[in-house]
Amino acid sequence: MFSSLLVANRGEVAVRIVRAAKELGIRTIAVYSEADRGALHTRLADEAYCIGPAPAQESYLNITNLLTLATLLGVDAVHPGYGFLAENARFAELVEEVGITFVGPPSEVIARMGDKATARRTMRSLGIPVLPGTDILHDVEEALREAEAIGYPVLVKATAGGGGRGMRIARTPEELRAAFRTAQLEAERAYGNGGLYLERYVERSRHIEVQILADRYGNVVHLGERECSLQRRHQKLLEESPSLPLTPAMREELGERVVRAVRGLGYVGAGTLEFLYDVRTGELFFIEMNTRLQVEHPVTEWVTGIDIVRETIRLAAGEPLEIRQEDVVLRGWSIECRINAEDPERGFLPTPGRLERVHLPGGFGVRVDTYAEPGAVIPPHYDSLVAKLVVWGETRDEAIRRMRRALDELVLEGDRLRTTAPLCRQIVDDPQFVRGDVHTGFLEEFLASRRAGVAGS
Amino acid sequence: MFSSLLVANRGEVAVRIVRAAKELGIRTIAVYSEADRGALHTRLADEAYCIGPAPAQESYLNITNLLTLATLLGVDAVHPGYGFLAENARFAELVEEVGITFVGPPSEVIARMGDKATARRTMRSLGIPVLPGTDILHDVEEALREAEAIGYPVLVKATAGGGGRGMRIARTPEELRAAFRTAQLEAERAYGNGGLYLERYVERSRHIEVQILADRYGNVVHLGERECSLQRRHQKLLEESPSLPLTPAMREELGERVVRAVRGLGYVGAGTLEFLYDVRTGELFFIEMNTRLQVEHPVTEWVTGIDIVRETIRLAAGEPLEIRQEDVVLRGWSIECRINAEDPERGFLPTPGRLERVHLPGGFGVRVDTYAEPGAVIPPHYDSLVAKLVVWGETRDEAIRRMRRALDELVLEGDRLRTTAPLCRQIVDDPQFVRGDVHTGFLEEFLASRRAGVAGS
Repeated sequence: MFSSLLVANRGEVAVRIVRAAKELGIRTIAVYSEADRGALHTRLADEAYCIGPAPAQESYLNITNLLTLATLLGVDAVHPGYGFLAENARFAELVEEVGITFVGPPSEVIARMGDKATARRTMRSLGIPVLPGTDILHDVEEALREAEAIGYPVLVKATAGGGGRGMRIARTPEELRAAFRTAQLEAERAYGNGGLYLERYVERSRHIEVQILADRYGNVVHLGERECSLQRRHQKLLEESPSLPLTPAMREELGERVVRAVRGLGYVGAGTLEFLYDVRTGELFFIEMNTRLQVEHPVTEWVTGIDIVRETIRLAAGEPLEIRQEDVVLRGWSIECRINAEDPERGFLPTPGRLERVHLPGGFGVRVDTYAEPGAVIPPHYDSLVAKLVVWGETRDEAIRRMRRALDELVLEGDRLRTTAPLCRQIVDDPQFVRGDVHTGFLEEFLASRRAGVAGS
Repeated sequence: MFSSLLVANRGEVAVRIVRAAKELGIRTIAVYSEADRGALHTRLADEAYCIGPAPAQESYLNITNLLTLATLLGVDAVHPGYGFLAENARFAELVEEVGITFVGPPSEVIARMGDKATARRTMRSLGIPVLPGTDILHDVEEALREAEAIGYPVLVKATAGGGGRGMRIARTPEELRAAFRTAQLEAERAYGNGGLYLERYVERSRHIEVQILADRYGNVVHLGERECSLQRRHQKLLEESPSLPLTPAMREELGERVVRAVRGLGYVGAGTLEFLYDVRTGELFFIEMNTRLQVEHPVTEWVTGIDIVRETIRLAAGEPLEIRQEDVVLRGWSIECRINAEDPERGFLPTPGRLERVHLPGGFGVRVDTYAEPGAVIPPHYDSLVAKLVVWGETRDEAIRRMRRALDELVLEGDRLRTTAPLCRQIVDDPQFVRGDVHTGFLEEFLASRRAGVAGS
């Protein structure tokens, strides 16, 4: 096992990784930008170093500073968490080149899955169903020809994509012409890569993803699925495990396919395969793979009892997977609400600032992963996620009741601070949500109906 | 289900009950003494009423004030928690007399189990093994005769007992003469009842207790056991579930016996049968039954996934038990440390005062039940329990590692405040504890060896 680990991240995920590493007896090294001085993750770690000014490019994304520090300190491993450098194949490669272990899959696999069109082709070759679609397109004329074959509506997607940028729906050839140009520009700006491909667009779909763990010795297990359909602009807001429409037989079949494919991929560590579930037909199609820890990993931890972050570290250290597939038994139901410092009443405008009053809910079946504490600063420079409120119940109904209670109890107050907590509270009261009748358009519809309600009142 | 519930308690257990009731959609009414004004349980409840001055006799034990308030508000039920009036049969009776449901077993059962000699006789008649011993003794001469038959050493116990008062070990007839007198005086002072009985004293024993749930319709289940051997003067400090020496076969046999006995008792609600486990012979003997929620209930909640406090409310409301014995599956390992405001370096002297800095550990597998928050007051008038730090792990080893990490992370600071947290931290590092080689004398020996170590250094 490693004797030291540098956590190349901030916020709640840095706290999460420090905790897991401490439980493994590993010395933890935190890094922070000038904006995060004194933050919780820096105090929980054994050591903490400033790696640059507030803008992420100059600190958390500053590969030179991170590598210099890691080398100077002689750390054994670097954990990237999620976001920032977590899916940067070049960073993973450089870390390995200086003789430090990157906690994640081999850089080659990150690169392969990071290119969405390649990932699609790879997964199809490994027996995973994908939506009718194309490889990278040469030009808009090719797109138009392919769209005819796929059938409208189609989704234009950036091969370097993620986070929804460079993604457009087209319902007609005219829309496709326009979408192609704007998506290309957006993708070039966002990723420096304007490569686009097409996929059939499914009107009513759910986002369901499968968590996997793989070791260096060819052992792979899946930890069931997560339901992540509640999204706004491809940003998840509320996640659950398990997913209501998946029967045990469907879970087993999907899991077996995924495990076979991941074994074929030469994957090591924790990863997630995202699927689109066609509500009308019940079919599942691969969308993309995230080669890192997911924000919503706690819901899986709670229903399986498996510490996924500990596993990321153990597997990177070359330890074998000790979990067999038959040991993975889902128990009960878990729901996570993302508490972001954003104002849902004003287009989810970020509301950075200093926290004044903080009360985190507790008790049976409640977990809060956060860096929030009285006096903590929510900087304007990063992701607005402040806390993940996670509950567990024997049934989905119990989990929903517990989430209501926990949200009612949560206090995060600061000058001008607004959060997504009140919106989450409304969602968990919504009859359609309670029935489990959700799809990826649910949240936008919910927001629209609230706006209409407010306008009408 | 009830529409309103008065919580006749304070501190962490009042918080716990308010949370459970809220999840059931019940309006919660908190009460507080003048010393607890503004405490967390009063703010989490829907309503809160002052019931008297700080001394418990004038507030939390003031039956008139509690009944008057409950009647005026027209509440449906009263939850006593643990301590205070939880095992006061007269209170339970009076609550029922004014037409309010007492959340607990029938007052007659409380009275029967509250008299320890009667409980012993009752349980023996229901097929539960008890230690060789006596019924209530008339005088010291009878005690001496009986002790010869039982064999020394013997334990002199108060029939009204609990909490260790009126309890003495006697290894010779001379010691028994002296012990009888002091125990009698102590029991009279503590309980207004000097009745004593004898039991064989087992030198090396573990304290193992079985949690049960029973409904009004004769359905009873057990939720496995808790290991509570780490005690100082019969005050538990660290508890676990399951207990290391119990094999699945032993658990099943013990559980079946307990379930049969509890059914015979006409019990309703949550209860706990405490057993002495003879380390040398592996035999289990009934000691006493607690007819209420136990402080250490969270470790059972974590390994079974069953919300015991919700069940106390549901069962009192006359709802049937929905859990069948075969549904009760123990998963993983849970450990609780009691964080008391006491100074272990000065004979566990209470250290009341105001909390200044508070950080509660969180993350995967960690639960903190507490009323602690910055500015909260730990009054000198009550039990010194401030927080229960509870962890879960797939294995005992993982739970121990997690407890170390959580204790390292915990911050409870105030002027002159000392807690049992550093002592708990030393215990979870101790090789004998880690091996699971504990008994009810372990903690005293541990403390003595630390004092010797300090004196010698």
